[in-house]
Amino acid sequence: MEDSLRKALSQKQAAVDAQGGAVRELKASGAPKDAIDAAVQELNALKLDKASIEKQLQAALTDGNDNALSRDAFRQALVNTLERRLFYIPSFKIYRGVAGLYDYGPPGCAVKSNVLAFWRQHFVLEENMLEVDCPCVTPEIVLKASGHVDKFTDLMVKDEKTGTCYRADHLLKDFCKEKLEKDLTISGEKAAELKHILAVLDDLSAEELGGKIKEYGITAPDTKNPLSAPYPFNLMFQTSIGPSGLSPGYMRPETAQGIFVNFKDLYYYNGNKLPFAAAQIGQAFRNEISPRQGLLRVREFTLAEIEHFVDPDDKSHPKFFEVANLEFLMFPRGEQVSGQSAKRMVLGEAVSKGIVNNETLGYFIGRVYLFLTCLGIDKERLRFRQHLANEMAHYAADCWDAEIECSYGWIECVGIADRSAYDLRAHTDKSGVPLVAHEKFAEPREVEKLIIAPVKKELGLAFKGSQKMVVEALEAMSEKEAMEMKATLESTGEVGFQVCTLGKDVTITKKMVSISKEKKKEHQRVFTPSVIEPSFGIGRIIYCLYEHSFYTRPSKAGDEQLNVFRFPPLVAPIKCTVFPLVQNQQYEEVAKSIAKSLTAAGISYKIDITGTSIGKRYARTDELGVPLAITVDSTSSVTIRERDSKDQIRVSVEEVASVVKEVTDGQSTWADVLWRYPTHSSASVDE
Amino acid sequence: MEDSLRKALSQKQAAVDAQGGAVRELKASGAPKDAIDAAVQELNALKLDKASIEKQLQAALTDGNDNALSRDAFRQALVNTLERRLFYIPSFKIYRGVAGLYDYGPPGCAVKSNVLAFWRQHFVLEENMLEVDCPCVTPEIVLKASGHVDKFTDLMVKDEKTGTCYRADHLLKDFCKEKLEKDLTISGEKAAELKHILAVLDDLSAEELGGKIKEYGITAPDTKNPLSAPYPFNLMFQTSIGPSGLSPGYMRPETAQGIFVNFKDLYYYNGNKLPFAAAQIGQAFRNEISPRQGLLRVREFTLAEIEHFVDPDDKSHPKFFEVANLEFLMFPRGEQVSGQSAKRMVLGEAVSKGIVNNETLGYFIGRVYLFLTCLGIDKERLRFRQHLANEMAHYAADCWDAEIECSYGWIECVGIADRSAYDLRAHTDKSGVPLVAHEKFAEPREVEKLIIAPVKKELGLAFKGSQKMVVEALEAMSEKEAMEMKATLESTGEVGFQVCTLGKDVTITKKMVSISKEKKKEHQRVFTPSVIEPSFGIGRIIYCLYEHSFYTRPSKAGDEQLNVFRFPPLVAPIKCTVFPLVQNQQYEEVAKSIAKSLTAAGISYKIDITGTSIGKRYARTDELGVPLAITVDSTSSVTIRERDSKDQIRVSVEEVASVVKEVTDGQSTWADVLWRYPTHSSASVDE
Repeated sequence: MEDSLRKALSQKQAAVDAQGGAVRELKASGAPKDAIDAAVQELNALKLDKASIEKQLQAALTDGNDNALSRDAFRQALVNTLERRLFYIPSFKIYRGVAGLYDYGPPGCAVKSNVLAFWRQHFVLEENMLEVDCPCVTPEIVLKASGHVDKFTDLMVKDEKTGTCYRADHLLKDFCKEKLEKDLTISGEKAAELKHILAVLDDLSAEELGGKIKEYGITAPDTKNPLSAPYPFNLMFQTSIGPSGLSPGYMRPETAQGIFVNFKDLYYYNGNKLPFAAAQIGQAFRNEISPRQGLLRVREFTLAEIEHFVDPDDKSHPKFFEVANLEFLMFPRGEQVSGQSAKRMVLGEAVSKGIVNNETLGYFIGRVYLFLTCLGIDKERLRFRQHLANEMAHYAADCWDAEIECSYGWIECVGIADRSAYDLRAHTDKSGVPLVAHEKFAEPREVEKLIIAPVKKELGLAFKGSQKMVVEALEAMSEKEAMEMKATLESTGEVGFQVCTLGKDVTITKKMVSISKEKKKEHQRVFTPSVIEPSFGIGRIIYCLYEHSFYTRPSKAGDEQLNVFRFPPLVAPIKCTVFPLVQNQQYEEVAKSIAKSLTAAGISYKIDITGTSIGKRYARTDELGVPLAITVDSTSSVTIRERDSKDQIRVSVEEVASVVKEVTDGQSTWADVLWRYPTHSSASVDE
Repeated sequence: MEDSLRKALSQKQAAVDAQGGAVRELKASGAPKDAIDAAVQELNALKLDKASIEKQLQAALTDGNDNALSRDAFRQALVNTLERRLFYIPSFKIYRGVAGLYDYGPPGCAVKSNVLAFWRQHFVLEENMLEVDCPCVTPEIVLKASGHVDKFTDLMVKDEKTGTCYRADHLLKDFCKEKLEKDLTISGEKAAELKHILAVLDDLSAEELGGKIKEYGITAPDTKNPLSAPYPFNLMFQTSIGPSGLSPGYMRPETAQGIFVNFKDLYYYNGNKLPFAAAQIGQAFRNEISPRQGLLRVREFTLAEIEHFVDPDDKSHPKFFEVANLEFLMFPRGEQVSGQSAKRMVLGEAVSKGIVNNETLGYFIGRVYLFLTCLGIDKERLRFRQHLANEMAHYAADCWDAEIECSYGWIECVGIADRSAYDLRAHTDKSGVPLVAHEKFAEPREVEKLIIAPVKKELGLAFKGSQKMVVEALEAMSEKEAMEMKATLESTGEVGFQVCTLGKDVTITKKMVSISKEKKKEHQRVFTPSVIEPSFGIGRIIYCLYEHSFYTRPSKAGDEQLNVFRFPPLVAPIKCTVFPLVQNQQYEEVAKSIAKSLTAAGISYKIDITGTSIGKRYARTDELGVPLAITVDSTSSVTIRERDSKDQIRVSVEEVASVVKEVTDGQSTWADVLWRYPTHSSASVDE
């Protein structure tokens, strides 16, 4: 819409310019008045058209801004509630805080611990995964092997006068967005250019980023000083292990490496059998250059990662059928490239059509979908987006992100990648310890093995000093190359052969190499397993959950908006509250005995014996997302009120804990218990 | 015993020497043969005595060494099992590891997560504590305020040639122990000196430690090179926050500071009411100079800490009665100083006699006792040791450590300290944000306030340049001092007064100061709460639990010793195993359906379908401490076998999950279910 308007506007401007020129020419050439009048009329019509398009464009941009405004207002209301009720607290607030560090306050901490408990149940327990717990402090050699020491960087620019640091891509992004949103005068062409930059921002090299920053004259946002050229900054927190200062270490940027280095032991623990999965929950650290986006981009966060080790020749999954019929929003590479949007797909079809690379990857996509939606993530605002070819590491076979839509846009919350054998190979190479699996054959198998035997004497005569490179190049040939060479040599006696390390082609004759296939008996196959890695950003999932659970509704008097979190009981920080209706000893005794039975049943609760009105107490507890409230209004039976429907039922004091347990454990729904007990409608406990 | 033998030995040596001298003198002086013979006989008797004492001493030391040997053998057997079954793994093993860093492998990770879940249930949920979750990365200012930047150090010495670092106290300790254990020739006096050093090791200053190292000629253990003088090394891992390099930070050495800096918000969250407790579970970091003692002294560990905030004027606890009758080993200051041993005491009496400072502290001691013994810590090897006056920080009101005996001796696993107002005051001072509580009075209260009004004109005349110091000293007087001065001034007209800042006494006359008491109405009391801090080293508790749970028993054939962990179900890493008796499809189907019902009941299990003998499979699972094993030996009913008694009962396939749940949830004991079901004695599943 906005695009086509910009295009129309610039076309119309060109037409106005052309017509204006025509009018001037007619006047100058002393053309008849009729002709001039007609031309002027035409010009005016064009100008009116242009004004109308301008108005439409303005409106389109304002609409966008309005949406942005209501998004901002929603987020502000949410964040106010989250901070006021201590779901989170900016860390070290009394010392004016540290960007990108947040505490979970009591309800946030409870939500987090519920999410992690469910993660353990849903993944570790249900799939019999091997959970491990490794330290955060990691010696350099491990992160050298993984590539983090060399490549875990962001591009940074410095204010050349004050030394303040900025992320180069952030500055360019802000510039492009600002221009697109506020500047009506830019041409359609320019707008397209800026949009293209936004689309490819993540792929720009340091040189390209620096070039654009220079071209657009972008300066330091705070001072308008000139900026340095972009250069890489490593995002790991560095430290030193032990007192000597000679053992550099880092705070781990992910938990996965702790699992990879233990592969050998874990494989043994699993009875030397594949497939199996290991899992880890723990803190990870990224020393962000300038953290933004509140709880979404932080310097320390909890990751929950699974490394599923599987035979690269067999990535089928025995339980895939359990998720094959799930249908949800998927956004394959093809749809992204051709400008289409995400579409609903049946998971089984996505796998059978080869859109998802293999069953195991598909199985985890399905399990992640179930995990997130059970937590309360809105399934209409959840999609699985496949990485584009240029987003994926060269070794990855396929990669899908679970993206959740929130007020910041679509946010990557879980990454599900088939990383092939990359990680285990990297640690095998660096440590010299083979991280491999064995498949013992029931019967020894006859296999054909390619034998390339360079004849060194002949090669030495022919190539003298460069003989070694030729030998190595011959030995490195793939089976296909070797068999082609063999055929050519047999038919023509010689063949041209490219030796990369020499940078030229050489001629190989029949005498110089013997190529054959030999049959051999093998008793086992030794191979590096592939790893399929679902990696969960727990903090991001929780933040999106807050957005999807938050709503407001008018108070009974209608004079204010009340905040509610519609957390499912599984997630709710506290499962129920206990309110004596009025302050008297009798009711407080009953409340205490109920509290005791709740504790015994393992249900977290909060007792509120303030004299505040029941309506106010309900509002307070709705704001924490507490699903059930027990009001003690007699000594024999009490009222249970459900948060979202505000339905109330009457239950005897003896039964109340078990009813609450039934609903909060998920054995029954509220609807199930609603018909079993009399509903309540006494004015005294009305809201 | 050893002491008195050493003393006797050196006395006898002196007697031998004296008698030898006497014999020589007699011979030289040409004394009669009779006299010489008698003296020689006496000398020989003395020598025999000495030899006998030497033998006894040797035996006493060997006994000690034997005990040490059997301790070492026990520990070795335990550690072998723990490492082989992946309870823990030295971190980054394939890169030859890093001292003081360990991973929890699958069973260790499960034990840890069970211990933490129970901690949450026993403390957080049961006491309605406010749990928070703060980052590990901490800016310098926070740890400046807490004192860690300046004081969290160990004394280190360096090999002067190679630069290798050692803990100074460790070297001195090793020297003293070695001498005492292996050197028979040292005098009783010397032995006493070395023992005294071992006793006061923790209190030695850098100078004292350095002095002793020099005096004893201690050198670097690896090279025998000379050592540097001891100097302090800060044990925090340092890092830098953000890209500028200008914001130093540390990995937190404890989790407590995250709670203290949030006091204001948490107090508000609790409705501005005291007492309340906040809690935190998380990683803490100490960059040990040279970690020893395996899992007991590590560089990264999980702490679980409680900060209970309480009115310093009222440290009673409403639930103290619930723990008052507990009786267990306590080791008060008095008993330690007078050389007695720990004794059984009733907690209520310890508090009422003032041995434990207050009820709240006593309440937590009782709760910690219950926590540890429920986990399976042997109550005969658990004691609560009070800190000696010189062990406690100057601000602490009282401090007790829960110490658990293991093969390394008595190990501090939980510290329970009344830290008074120290921490909140330190952060109030550094941040300027008052971390205080308010007590609103129902009625305004009339309070007498002391008014000290120095008369500056008179003081100026009398003291000229030093007038300011005198004014400040007068204003800083306590109520008692001021009232005494007032009385003296009224009776004699003048008084001598010490001004510390001047370093001398001055004479104050009646004209120079007016002291009075004024009555004022106050509506509230503002005060800094005291904090009572139970702090749990989770890794240490778990290691001691391993020691207390581990035992061996002969295999049925009697040809080998089998390892067992007698974990209570609460702690056990896996609650049960499922074994099809023989490999056939029918039994495997039943095993799978049981597995499904176990998962649904939330019970962790392991299925073992290998064809190994049932006896071997039991042994494997005993070694993981799995309490119950289900053997599928028919399609309708199965055998459940208990780990420690090896009792077996028969239960129908439908019931088996609920029986396992009943026992592992702690609703029933094994004894409870044993009589309800027929016992099993078929030879086929015998061990």
